[in-house]
Amino acid sequence: MDKYPSALLEKAVSEFAKLPGVGRKTALRLVLFMLKRSENEVDAFSEAILRVKQDIKYCKVCHNISDTDVCPICGDKRRDGSVVCVVENVQDVMAIENTQQFRGLYHVLGGVISPMDGVGPGDLEIDSLVDRVAEGQIKEVILALSSTMEGDTTSFYISRKLSSFGIKMSAIARGISVGNELEYTDEVTLGRSILNRTPFQG
Amino acid sequence: MDKYPSALLEKAVSEFAKLPGVGRKTALRLVLFMLKRSENEVDAFSEAILRVKQDIKYCKVCHNISDTDVCPICGDKRRDGSVVCVVENVQDVMAIENTQQFRGLYHVLGGVISPMDGVGPGDLEIDSLVDRVAEGQIKEVILALSSTMEGDTTSFYISRKLSSFGIKMSAIARGISVGNELEYTDEVTLGRSILNRTPFQG
Repeated sequence: MDKYPSALLEKAVSEFAKLPGVGRKTALRLVLFMLKRSENEVDAFSEAILRVKQDIKYCKVCHNISDTDVCPICGDKRRDGSVVCVVENVQDVMAIENTQQFRGLYHVLGGVISPMDGVGPGDLEIDSLVDRVAEGQIKEVILALSSTMEGDTTSFYISRKLSSFGIKMSAIARGISVGNELEYTDEVTLGRSILNRTPFQG
Repeated sequence: MDKYPSALLEKAVSEFAKLPGVGRKTALRLVLFMLKRSENEVDAFSEAILRVKQDIKYCKVCHNISDTDVCPICGDKRRDGSVVCVVENVQDVMAIENTQQFRGLYHVLGGVISPMDGVGPGDLEIDSLVDRVAEGQIKEVILALSSTMEGDTTSFYISRKLSSFGIKMSAIARGISVGNELEYTDEVTLGRSILNRTPFQG
């Protein structure tokens, strides 16, 4: 255990060390960086964190993080409300938006079903997805969850929940990454990329 | 440029991204982690950073970070006030204290002379070191700066400043690390380890 020359310093280091991926050495480096910044800059940092925690809202339609009751994406009339892409979290929304390939709406689950981590269907925004579909506007639900055991379980659970509505259900394509060479692709991915082959566009 | 679904979120991400070694992706992960924590925890984090900035003191003797006017090390009567170890920053004090091999006092420069970064002798606690030595109690000054161009320059500058006092000046030993194999040690270090060989203690 390191001996800190100051209790205030140690407290701040402990707080930084609670962040994911930040050990005590990194935390000390971050705190000493803070000490070198001006008081205004430190105030701005502290204030931004407090405000994001206190004032952040979640869109009441898609449950994405938002400054307003309905997020800019759900509120955008030019987007296609008949297609909903189901994702795990806000990072996934940002990643898909960056592709500029999707003009429908989103539904943010807030996680995936993971019994190991104590996350059940009731902890996720699945019932609210069923309610959205029940309103009758949605024609297609795209499942865009991680290609992991938990993601697949969640996709399966949702598809069962929505099966009675008779809407189109799809999942994002699994296959070899653009730019990747075949010989370095794992065999499960390569196998699925052959099974799910698409018409060639020359 | 990523499009954030919320201005509050983006502001908090920008603040985290100013930390050294933290990019915007990591910053977003840290902010989302903050959002999952309780309001009390976020308050504690924010408070610890504000307090360390506002209330931290620097020891008026050695200039190390401290909660009091004189730090616990300088205030410890059992330590040897005749030997002063000159270091760059608080991490170095902690590292040397962890070895439990040094019972003298410290002098924290707050950096090293680095014209490239605009750091001159006047930006460091060098004059206060000269003043300490001038008081006449100090018999030995150990230079424990980084083995870099800047560290060596600073050591040289300090040794010149203190030369008139006729005290013992020493530098920490450079040599191969304990546990390291000879063949993987760089030749400069290996060469110095031969020049500065020590009597063998069998």
